[in-house]
This record gives sequence, structure tokens and C-alpha cells, in this order.
Amino acid sequence: MNYRRLGRSGLQVSELSIGSWVTYGNQVDHNLARESLAAARDAGVNFFDNAEAYAGGKSEEIMGQAVKELAWPRVSYVVSTKFFWGLNEAPNQYHTLNRKYLMNAIDGSLKRLQLDYVDLVFCHRPDPNTPIEETVWAMSDMISRGKALYWGTSEWSADEIRSAWDIAERHHLHKPVMEQPQYNLFHRRRVENEYQRLYEDIGLGLTTWSPLASGLLTGKYRGGVPASSRAQLQGYDWLRKEVTDADKNEIVGRLADFAKELDCTVGQLALAWILKNPHVSTVITGASRVEQIGENMLAREVAQKITPEVKEKIEAIVGDSYD
Amino acid sequence: MNYRRLGRSGLQVSELSIGSWVTYGNQVDHNLARESLAAARDAGVNFFDNAEAYAGGKSEEIMGQAVKELAWPRVSYVVSTKFFWGLNEAPNQYHTLNRKYLMNAIDGSLKRLQLDYVDLVFCHRPDPNTPIEETVWAMSDMISRGKALYWGTSEWSADEIRSAWDIAERHHLHKPVMEQPQYNLFHRRRVENEYQRLYEDIGLGLTTWSPLASGLLTGKYRGGVPASSRAQLQGYDWLRKEVTDADKNEIVGRLADFAKELDCTVGQLALAWILKNPHVSTVITGASRVEQIGENMLAREVAQKITPEVKEKIEAIVGDSYD
Amino acid sequence: MNYRRLGRSGLQVSELSIGSWVTYGNQVDHNLARESLAAARDAGVNFFDNAEAYAGGKSEEIMGQAVKELAWPRVSYVVSTKFFWGLNEAPNQYHTLNRKYLMNAIDGSLKRLQLDYVDLVFCHRPDPNTPIEETVWAMSDMISRGKALYWGTSEWSADEIRSAWDIAERHHLHKPVMEQPQYNLFHRRRVENEYQRLYEDIGLGLTTWSPLASGLLTGKYRGGVPASSRAQLQGYDWLRKEVTDADKNEIVGRLADFAKELDCTVGQLALAWILKNPHVSTVITGASRVEQIGENMLAREVAQKITPEVKEKIEAIVGDSYD
Amino acid sequence: MNYRRLGRSGLQVSELSIGSWVTYGNQVDHNLARESLAAARDAGVNFFDNAEAYAGGKSEEIMGQAVKELAWPRVSYVVSTKFFWGLNEAPNQYHTLNRKYLMNAIDGSLKRLQLDYVDLVFCHRPDPNTPIEETVWAMSDMISRGKALYWGTSEWSADEIRSAWDIAERHHLHKPVMEQPQYNLFHRRRVENEYQRLYEDIGLGLTTWSPLASGLLTGKYRGGVPASSRAQLQGYDWLRKEVTDADKNEIVGRLADFAKELDCTVGQLALAWILKNPHVSTVITGASRVEQIGENMLAREVAQKITPEVKEKIEAIVGDSYD
Repeated sequence: MNYRRLGRSGLQVSELSIGSWVTYGNQVDHNLARESLAAARDAGVNFFDNAEAYAGGKSEEIMGQAVKELAWPRVSYVVSTKFFWGLNEAPNQYHTLNRKYLMNAIDGSLKRLQLDYVDLVFCHRPDPNTPIEETVWAMSDMISRGKALYWGTSEWSADEIRSAWDIAERHHLHKPVMEQPQYNLFHRRRVENEYQRLYEDIGLGLTTWSPLASGLLTGKYRGGVPASSRAQLQGYDWLRKEVTDADKNEIVGRLADFAKELDCTVGQLALAWILKNPHVSTVITGASRVEQIGENMLAREVAQKITPEVKEKIEAIVGDSYD
Repeated sequence: MNYRRLGRSGLQVSELSIGSWVTYGNQVDHNLARESLAAARDAGVNFFDNAEAYAGGKSEEIMGQAVKELAWPRVSYVVSTKFFWGLNEAPNQYHTLNRKYLMNAIDGSLKRLQLDYVDLVFCHRPDPNTPIEETVWAMSDMISRGKALYWGTSEWSADEIRSAWDIAERHHLHKPVMEQPQYNLFHRRRVENEYQRLYEDIGLGLTTWSPLASGLLTGKYRGGVPASSRAQLQGYDWLRKEVTDADKNEIVGRLADFAKELDCTVGQLALAWILKNPHVSTVITGASRVEQIGENMLAREVAQKITPEVKEKIEAIVGDSYD
Repeated sequence: MNYRRLGRSGLQVSELSIGSWVTYGNQVDHNLARESLAAARDAGVNFFDNAEAYAGGKSEEIMGQAVKELAWPRVSYVVSTKFFWGLNEAPNQYHTLNRKYLMNAIDGSLKRLQLDYVDLVFCHRPDPNTPIEETVWAMSDMISRGKALYWGTSEWSADEIRSAWDIAERHHLHKPVMEQPQYNLFHRRRVENEYQRLYEDIGLGLTTWSPLASGLLTGKYRGGVPASSRAQLQGYDWLRKEVTDADKNEIVGRLADFAKELDCTVGQLALAWILKNPHVSTVITGASRVEQIGENMLAREVAQKITPEVKEKIEAIVGDSYD
Repeated sequence: MNYRRLGRSGLQVSELSIGSWVTYGNQVDHNLARESLAAARDAGVNFFDNAEAYAGGKSEEIMGQAVKELAWPRVSYVVSTKFFWGLNEAPNQYHTLNRKYLMNAIDGSLKRLQLDYVDLVFCHRPDPNTPIEETVWAMSDMISRGKALYWGTSEWSADEIRSAWDIAERHHLHKPVMEQPQYNLFHRRRVENEYQRLYEDIGLGLTTWSPLASGLLTGKYRGGVPASSRAQLQGYDWLRKEVTDADKNEIVGRLADFAKELDCTVGQLALAWILKNPHVSTVITGASRVEQIGENMLAREVAQKITPEVKEKIEAIVGDSYD
């Protein structure tokens, strides 16, 4: 496994990492979670991504229990959580980044995770109804109090990230060091264009999510939505719509043909392509099955075959069919 | 004429103003320029937009000469210029916002305009090869030395504008107060979304350009490109392509039908729609004919008919066919 | 014993102090450690230097146990530790000064030392892969949380020290107050030239190491490497090479002759010469034998004989044979 | 000619430039100076380096007169000067960077150069007897008053440069953007090691001098000092000693052999090697003969042959025989 600096910070994260979005708690049982984490760590993964809202808090509980049973030294792994959605639809408890919510949320997460601190804590979305300054103070205070080591954002605009950074600099607070954006062959503009000046100016690091575009880039939706798929679940209409886009599935077909030439699956190709972006610190991958982890890890070898020419070919197949 | 504050600054600009892009110097003779300016002023216009690069410096010369002949009191009008493109394709002389170029450029503009100072000076585009800090210092120094009164940007990203503002705030320099973005029914995302936080945070004012989308919104391209049109000139292929877009001309047709209901032209409707955006300080309009000025001014009356319901209808016609 | 201010700080340290590099744990048994510490303290020594990496953590354990058995009042002695090398070769655990490692390391050291706080904590080497700002925040936080009283650096360049100091000043954090450089008759440029401006500008204090140039300046290697020497140990080739340098041993011979004139050993002369440098707060000496402590302490008396003329003669013998 | 940014500033300088140290005034007549400048400009050179002390002020006078006769547009070229030595050995007039001297010196230089401003102004050496803060204020004031566009240092330590930069940042003054160090195959440590952190931290640009190590790297001293050489002049003993070093001339011989393989002279090889260092903004070359300019310019073509492997071979020939 290669380790990369999280942006300009000194923290080292494995270039492939594991996320748990609706995975643990909903579909995967407790033992499976522990096995998945153990397998990932054996493969060299040191970063495990989490959020308060994943599976309504259960994701954190299961990860916390599994890590405890595995008895890893605390310094050897990096765990995150994220705040914004909240667990209850009530004032100051959801869709907010106000001080009251954030201060309460971190304590809840640490309890569920059975940890003294998380390594990374993210503002899961921007909140137009809280001044960025209030949020920056609260996030910085989490670090000052030893409840988190680094903080960052997820799906914030470049302008919002810079605003947060500048407020922290001006008020001598802990600055945001990373952003968690969606990034894959079908979703590129924010990472490749909008954030461009932030990499040099503030040393922004990226922990990217949805590397396979909700599974679209595995090719498994080319023939429709399988019965066992998450996209069949109630409340996932948006996902169903996204992964059954005809034009994109056609492109996936051509990417799959090209992947064969490189002796890999289209999913591995899609992951490997992300690894070639030097601004990406770590690619968060899913892990609903233990074998999936091993398959994803192979993307690191595929990445070695992605020369500038190969990269150009991949991007030519996608054309401008991306956000 | 109504006058609006240029963002949160104290400067008052007429809500409709006159620009001179490739107008003076290329197509309009000297006397016509003077007549146009006089007519605009009679209609209450107090802001006249310019740039070093318009007609290779001739635009400034003609406006400077006309204003001199008209003998208006200097305090009664607001004139701008913009720097970036430069007049010579040589290092430090074009496509730059470095200190050497900017300091030289302002002196050249003032000489061509026969003025001691301009009211507004814009960075005509962002320059990725000069630190924003260097540009902010140079722009601020222009103001300190009395060569300009306010400075701003044109077509900068929200992130770049905020960066400039924050640097100026931190180093106690003159801050940017306005941006000159393209804004019309077919080009809205930057003004309506990307800049959203800047209006409140830094009080950004807008002097918008291309209100008629290069003429597309006048309807004159619905039957093809007229022989006398600028879009027939050599080197204007991009313009020809833009204004002959079939889908957009179809929308323009439906807007024209709707305009009839309001007793105005589609061009006036398009201008009036912009006037309803409170973040817009002034809409820069063209003036290749004297009569055009009067026609455009009528948009102010049309604006009074644009109730929230009418606005909604206009936007429904455009749908999501806009950038 | 004389006590000197640690740079411009108010802390008083004995001008001779005791270090424990590979001494305790490897070669010296537990009781010996306690005896050495007691002897040193009887001689007036109040500063005991340590590091996480010395003997893989055992050095701290033994010193911690000895100090506990000796039951000295906590306020009466000054103890240090240093972080960088780490105890495990894994990401975020070695060769780093990132926040995660440092926050974990201080807790580990305090546990091994059986202390609530250390007096001094050093960044043992510069880390090019962590921003100095991140390190400064973490060191300052150690002090804010009461886990250390003062922080500093070891073998950092003047540029790096100043950068750390300026960041702390700008962000209102606890500033570094001391540096631990190698300093002896054969290694002088950094202390005498490179750091020159730092003494006045930031009041840098020095706790110097290797006063006898790894033993070279005792003269014991003039006839080759003794069988019992550390330089015979495996993995100490670099040391063997250094102490058997023919030119330097020749100089040591001449220094030894000169030492006779002053009625002292060459080692005492070398120590005394360092004591004459007013920028040195304390000279850290070894203590593998109890008697060695008494011998070294005599250097304080020798120092009184080092008039400016004597100092010049010593330096003339060394010539420019120093780094 | 390629142009490079001067560090992180927006100023573009030709990668090869012309200096005039003791060249004009002492050995070269007035017409020759004009011819040399014209030839250099024809080759694409846009930066001409100068200093108050070169030839006791005559160097500036001759360059000023030549530039005036050539009637180049001021924006099209970049000219520098440097202050420290002074023209008179009297208090506040030599060996100083105090405010009184600097403010007087810039006016003298501008008069000799017949210019309104210089583009670059350097502190020619560090001055231990003036606080860096006093110097920073004076240099910044030169820029604020329009007498210079950018300022920097020459032969300052990394620590001194950072101190100047931090003072300027803290007090919101114009920051130093470049340093003029000696840099050639025999003099590398400062550029390659000491300044390392400054390139990223403050974006330091380099205008390097003595690319041929006072001529040593042309090979012309391999057989002794020619009668016409500057090294025969009175007061140039230090130069004579430097260029007749036997070991270095032996290395130059081997470099000359290697240069033959690349179809170039050893001087061109030495220049080309410098051009491969991306931290170098421009290499200042001498021009005592017009033809010399053309010869030096060929180094740009040689640089294209310096692959990483070739670079390694060149450096292997030099070994560690460099400062």
C-alpha cells in the first residue's frame, strides 16, 4: 500500500480506504463488518471513513465495536466522522452546522465509536443558515479540546472552503485541511476546476467518495437494476435513476472493453484513474463484501499501467459526459 | 433614470450604462461617438464602460476625445477601464496582471482617455500566473496614487474574488468592490449561484455585460446572420456560432411572443429582466446607433411590469437552457 | 554549580547536565542509573535529558523509575523528552512531526516517565513532510494542556527555527525557546554562525549535545577503538569511522598536551571551552559511570582558566578542522 | 528565448540575462555597451542586471545612456540595481542598508540610469548593523513611491530572507520576491540546500550570478592566467587565486571532455546545467564581447540535451568539490 499526505498536512493515509455509507447496519451484519475491517487493514488500509448519519448512527456503533474487538493500537489507524444531517428532524438537530448541534454531535459520535477522539471530522455539507465563522470556531474547538485531530468539509464550494480557511487564519484557529468531494469519471468539474487554486494556496487534501459513481462504473447496471441492489430499496429512486442512465451505461460498456486490454475490470480501471490524480489523498471505496476489498486493492496495480496516453484514451471515451 | 449603489460602495451608477466594446473605433465614427455619449447622458446615463483592449486602445482614445469635447464636469460621470489582454504580445505586456504591466497600463489608459483618473478599474480576467496578492497590491496602489477611485474584477471565480478581498483586508489595502460578469437570460449560474455568498459577505456590486447575449436576445438572428452584423466579421466565428444556436433562437421566438403581451421588444424584455435582479448595479448596454440608446432606456419602464409572476413566466420559457 | 537561563526564558538550568542517549537500558543497569542521577544531583545538576527514541523507550522508563525511587520534589528538577523517530516503523508513527504522532507520543512518554508533565519537549529533527505550522500547533497544545512547560527543536536549521517562531508569534501560540544542537570543538558552524541572528532576535537557548564529539575529544581513540567502546557495537560503523579520524586524533593529541598545562584532561578542556560560549545554556554530558560525573563537573573549574587568550590558543590548535 | 516567472511573482524574465559587473566602464567602451545590449535584446534577453557599485556608478551611467539611445519602450525591458557597498567610504554611505543610505542611493541610481523607476532593486549583501525591519521598511517605501517595482536580496542567508519576508508580512509591507545568489557547478549548497524551504514557503525566485565561476568553468585558466584577463588586474588577487585552483581546473578538463560529447563548450555546458534547475528564474551572464552573447545563448539548446542521466554524469564529475 502507498500512503499519501492528506493535502499539505503531515497525516499519512492509505491511497485506498474504506467507507461505510449505508453498508454496515443496513445490509451487513456485525461479524462481517469486523472481517471487512480486518481484511482491509491486512491490505494496508489505515483510513476508515464514517459519518453520524450513515445508517442513523449504527454505522459508527458497528465500526466502534469492531475496532474495539480487533484491539488495534489507537495510533495505527485513522477514523473519521461527519456532521450536518443530524439524527433527529428537530431544530438545532438536523441540517445545521451551528455550535449547539456540532458540540453535541461530536460527543455522540465518540460515544458510539467508543473512542476518545476521531482523527478527522468533516462538515458534511455547507449550511447557508449558519455563519461560516460560527462553524469554524466550533470545529476548531473540537480540536483544541482533543476530540478530533484535523477538520475539513464535504461538498463545499471553493468559495466556502476559502472563506472558512481565511476566517481560521485571521482568528488563529485550527484551519480546515481536507475536503471530501464526489469524484469519479462522471463527476469531475469541482475537483479538476473549481478547487484548482486551493491546492496551492491552502494545501487542500481530498478524501474522495463514490469512485464508482454509485456502482454505475462497475458495469453491473448495464442490463438493468439487479434485484439485490441497493437501488431497489425504497427511498432510493434517485439512485435508480442515476445508475440506469442509458448514455452513461453505453460509455461504461466501452470503458469495459478498454479495461479488458489492461487485464482488469471496469471498476478497477475507474479506481485506478482516480489514483492518478495527485490532488487525491485517498479514494474511499465501499466494502459490502470482504472479497470486494481485495478486488478494489488490485486497482493499485492497474494504476501503474495508466500512462499519460492511457489516461487520455480513458478520458476520450467519457468525452464531456461528466459533471 | 434610477441610480444604484455599486454594491456596498457609496458610488451611484445609472442602472443602465453604456459600453464600447469594438463599437467605437471599428464601426462608428468619431462624431457618432460624441453624439451617442451625449444622448446617453441626456437619458440619465452616468457610467461609461471601457477597456484598454477594446479596439486596440482606440476605444479609449475616442471616448476620451468625445468627453473632452463635450466638456462635462469630471465629477458628473463615471468612466472605467480594464487591464489584462495588453496591447503587445510580449512578456509582461499581455495576458498578465503583474505589477509591471498594470503600472504601465494605467498610465497608458489615462493618456489615451486624457484623464487624471478613472473611476473604476477592472482586472479584465483572472491571471493564473501572477499571485493574486501581487495584483491586489498593484490595484490598490493605483487608488493610493490617485489614478483610480475603485477597483474590481471581470469574470473571476467566486473563490478568486474572495481571495483578493481577503488579501486586501489582511494587508489593509483597497478592496475590490465590483465584478463585471456576463449576465443575461442564457447565462445566469455564476451571478445567481456561484457569487451568492459574496453579496452579503463582501457587498459585491455587479456591472453586467452582454445583456442581450451578443444580440441573440434581440431576435435579429432568428432568420440567420444579417450581412451587416458583427457576426459576419472575420475572427468572429465563435460569435456566429453562438447567435445561430437553433434551440436558443426558438426560445427567443417564444420570449418575443411574450414581449408583445407586455408591449415591448424581446430585447427590452431581456434588459428589464436583468434590472429586476437587485444584485445588479448597472446593466452595460451597447450603443452602435444613437436611437439604440433610447430604445434600451425604455427597458426601465418595462421593468415596472415585471412582477414576480411575470418573472416566473419568463424564466419558465427559458427553462434550464442557460449556463 | 552555576545555573543559566534557558535562552531568554526564565527557566534556570545547571550549566552542566546529564543525558541518557543509549546509556541507560543498553549498557547500564537500573541501580547504576539511580546512583548516577543521585550523584549528578548532588553535584548540582538539575537538568536530565531524555528522548522517546533512546533505547527504544527504555531510557525514559529507567529514568522515570529512578526519579520515582529517589523521591525528588517535582519542582526541583527539569526533565526533557524528544519526538520524531517514533517507536514503530509505520505511517504516522515514525519519522514524523504530525499532530497525530505527537499527541500520541507525549502520552506515551509521560506514562514511561511516570510524570504528569515534562519540563522540556523537543522536536528531535525537522520533518520536511509536515508543515511547520502543524507541528507548532501540536507543540503549543502540549503546553496548553499542561503536558509540557517549554518546547524547542533539535538540529533544525536557523530558517526552520525562525519559521516556527514566527508562526507561533502570528497565531499567538507558545513559541519555541530552545534548540539542542551538536556543539564541540570539531562541530561549530551552526552554533557560531548559522544561529547568530536568532540569539538576539528570539532569545534562543541552547542545550548542546556531544560535547566530546562522541568521545573523540577524550583522547581515548587516539590508539584505536577500545574493545569495550560503544563504537565496537554493531550498527555503530558511522561512530567508529568518526572517532578514528587520523587528523582529528592528531589535533586531540595537541589539545591533550595543552590541557596538561592547565592541569586538566583534554575532555575537561573541551567541556570547559563550550562553557565559555554565553549562548550555551547547558552542556549535556554522558554518564555511563558514576565517577564520570565528578570528572565532568571539574570542567567548571577549568572554565575559569580559559581567558580570551587561552581560548584563542585552543582554537588555533583546531584551526579550521571543524564543521 | 524562454521566459520564466521571477519566483512566484508575475514578472517574466528571460532565462538568460545580461549583467554588467566591472564590464562596462572599466574594459568596454560606450559604443560596445550599446551594441552588446542590442545584440542581447535581439536574442530575446529582457533582463539587464546592474548595481550601484559596479565600476563605481559608471556601469549604471553607461547602461542608462545606451538604453536611452536604443529608445526601447520602458515596459519592454527589466532593469535592476543593488545597494550596499555605496560609492563613498563614509558613515551612512557604505557597507550599510540603513534608511538614510537606501533612500539616497535609489535617487542616485535613477539619475545615473535616466529612469523613473527600476524594475528590481536588491539589498546587495546583508548588513548586521541595521535591523532587518529598518531595511524592509525602506525597500518597501521605494516601491510605494514608484521608484522600484519589486525588491529582493543578494547573498542573504535563508534565515535573513525569511526574517525580512515575515516582517513585511506582519507589517503589510511589500515583500522581497527574489534573491541573487552565486550559483554554478562549484558553488551549490546555498541554492540547493539552505534555501530549500523558501521556494515553497515564500515563492523565492533566483537571479543567479557567476554561472562560470569567475571564468573558471570556461576552461581558459587551465593553462594559467592569460595576460589580458581581469584576473591580472591589480586588486584581483582573490580572483587569481580562485581561478587557478589546480583541482578545480582538473575537473574543468574532464567537463570539457564531456562537453565535446554533447557538441558544446564547457562554458555552455555549465550554463545549461544551471538552466535545468527549476528554482532559477534567470542566469545572469557576462558580456564583455558582443560575440560572447551569441555563444552564451547557445546554452539554451544544450540544455535540451541535459537529460536526468546527463545531469547525473556532470555532477558525478564534480563530485563533492563544490561549496
